[in-house]
Order: sequence, then structure tokens, then C-alpha cells
Amino acid sequence: MASALARLPGLGPRSARRAVLWLIKRRETSLVQLAEALEGVRARLVECTTCGNVDTANPCSVCTDPRRDARALCVVEEVADLWALDRSRLFTGRYHVLGGRLSALEGVGPEDLSIGQLLQRLEAGGIDEVVLAMNATLEGQTTAHYIAERIEHLPLRVTQLAHGLPVGGELDYLDEGTLAQALRARRPVG
Amino acid sequence: MASALARLPGLGPRSARRAVLWLIKRRETSLVQLAEALEGVRARLVECTTCGNVDTANPCSVCTDPRRDARALCVVEEVADLWALDRSRLFTGRYHVLGGRLSALEGVGPEDLSIGQLLQRLEAGGIDEVVLAMNATLEGQTTAHYIAERIEHLPLRVTQLAHGLPVGGELDYLDEGTLAQALRARRPVG
Repeated sequence: MASALARLPGLGPRSARRAVLWLIKRRETSLVQLAEALEGVRARLVECTTCGNVDTANPCSVCTDPRRDARALCVVEEVADLWALDRSRLFTGRYHVLGGRLSALEGVGPEDLSIGQLLQRLEAGGIDEVVLAMNATLEGQTTAHYIAERIEHLPLRVTQLAHGLPVGGELDYLDEGTLAQALRARRPVG
Repeated sequence: MASALARLPGLGPRSARRAVLWLIKRRETSLVQLAEALEGVRARLVECTTCGNVDTANPCSVCTDPRRDARALCVVEEVADLWALDRSRLFTGRYHVLGGRLSALEGVGPEDLSIGQLLQRLEAGGIDEVVLAMNATLEGQTTAHYIAERIEHLPLRVTQLAHGLPVGGELDYLDEGTLAQALRARRPVG
């Protein structure tokens, strides 16, 4: 059980062992509850065939939420990114999860991602803006450029997340690449 | 000597002790050299009365460099920020070091920074663009807003560093504030 728990992100072998001991002590209550909860989730979780989100319904609760703006679509690499962006509560449109990023090293090509489905969604119309919200890594940016080229011919406003200083960032502690980005993309005040 | 060294940023008490032992072993060579180097630097360093940089000449080598664009001025909090930005080699103008940031908590007001001198430099003319390159902290941004208001009446292009994803930033690991900034300041692709 400890090695299974240790495979969870953020949980090392030591804290996994501590968690196991905690669960064993409470095996009649907590352990049963956790096992039931995991089984319940496993049985109910489905992948949204529209956007690729993981939820208990298909289409997922994000795709069917009537308060969301159907004309804005945010493209992300992974479900975790969708959830991270949604926590910021600033984006009120819908999402499209690619299921990864282009990577020559790992042998991931366009056909391994849900880019075809993305094109279908966009070609179906009704969407005005596409936000390419890839990670600021080399592979993320390669993926963003690739998608931007593939959708160039569509009448869409294509944007990408701003790059620059992170909140709380102190110039003296930031890498030169980020400083260069922040300087290159400097904006008028006010 | 160990406690003096341990006060250096980046050097803990343990690595300071290790450095002391290393120096003591080589006391006839390295220790004398280091002492002489420190004394030599101490005697020669001066603050540039134009921009506030620390250098061996006044005006400093940045202010007198003829290849630099005298029409662009980048305002930073500390000398360390000037050096950090200059390492990125993207900014080719001159600098103005404020000597700190506005802070109600630490009792730092506008008169404690070289804002008066900055205004004099700008009012003297010859400068087209002012880049406010404060840290992305609350105090840094307060300082930037204050300066932007004070120079509003001058015929200048006032810009600030872009805020957003740092280079290599993965959405899932970034704080919500940074994601919100990156989303709010999203830019057209291409």
C-alpha cells in the first residue's frame, strides 16, 4: 500500500509510509472510507468526449454550464491545466484538452493529440476567440505554434497567455530568459 | 571570519565554515589575495551620481557607454536589478536606480528614493521612453504606479515589464495570481 501511495505526486516514500500507518490505525473507519471513495470515483469518472476534461458526466459540467461563454475556447495540454486555470476564475469560456504536447524526444506527434477534434470544433463555428494556454516550455510553445498555423485560415482571434514576471517575482532572482521576455513584451502603463 | 562570510547572500553558516577552512589552509596565498582584493574594491567603488549604479568610475561605465541609447531609461529598485537586467542584454538604454521601493511598513517614502533626481533627468529632456522595471511585488508595483503618476505630464512613452508565465512555467505549478495575470494580459499570436 505504501508503494502505491508513494506513486501519488507530492507524496514521497516517507510520507507514504506515515499515511499508511495513519490509515492502518483507523482501518475500520478511514481505510474503508478511502477504499469506497476511490472505487466510487473510479466507477463514475468519464472523459468528456467534447473537451477531454475528466468529470462524472459526459459532456462534462464545464461544457454544459450555461453561464459559460461558448464563443471563447481555451486550449490546454492536460486536464490538470484546465483545473489550474479554472481555479483562477478569470476565464469564463470553455476548454479543449490536447492530452499532451508535441515532443520529438518522446515521439509525440500531432496525431497523438486531440488536434483533429479541436479543428472540428472550430470549423463547426460559433467560436470567436481561441486562447492557446500551453506551458511556457519549449515543447508547450512548439505545440502552440503548430496549432496557430493549423487554424490560421479560420476567422478567429487567436491569443496566447502573456509571458513575463510571475506574481511576486524579484528581478534579481529571475532567470535571464524571463527577464528578456518581460522586457521584450513590455507594455504601456495605464 | 566565518560569521562575516555567512552574512553573504547564498552562503550559509556551514558553507561559510568550509570556506574559512579552505582560506586558512591557503592563508599565505588565497587569504592575502582575497583581503587585498576586497580592500582594492572598497577603495575604488563609487556610486554614480547620475544613475545610482555602483562602479569604479563616476559617471559609471553604463552612463558613459556611447553605444547605449540615451533616449531610453529603465528605472529599477536596486543596483542588483540593474545588473540582472543588463545580463539579459536586451535593454540597450540607460538606467536609474531608485535605491529601494515605497513601503508603508518600513517607513520608506518618496523622499527616501531618488525620485526627485529621476524627475530632473526626465525634465532635462532627450529621453523618449521610460521603462518601469520594478519587482512584481506589491511594493514594487505601488512604486511603479506612484512614479507613473508623477511623470504623467511629461511627453514620454511610459512602459512596464510584462507580467505572466515565467520561462519554463507549467500552468499546473503556477500560483493563481500569475495565471490570472497571464490570462488577463493575453496577446494575439504571431
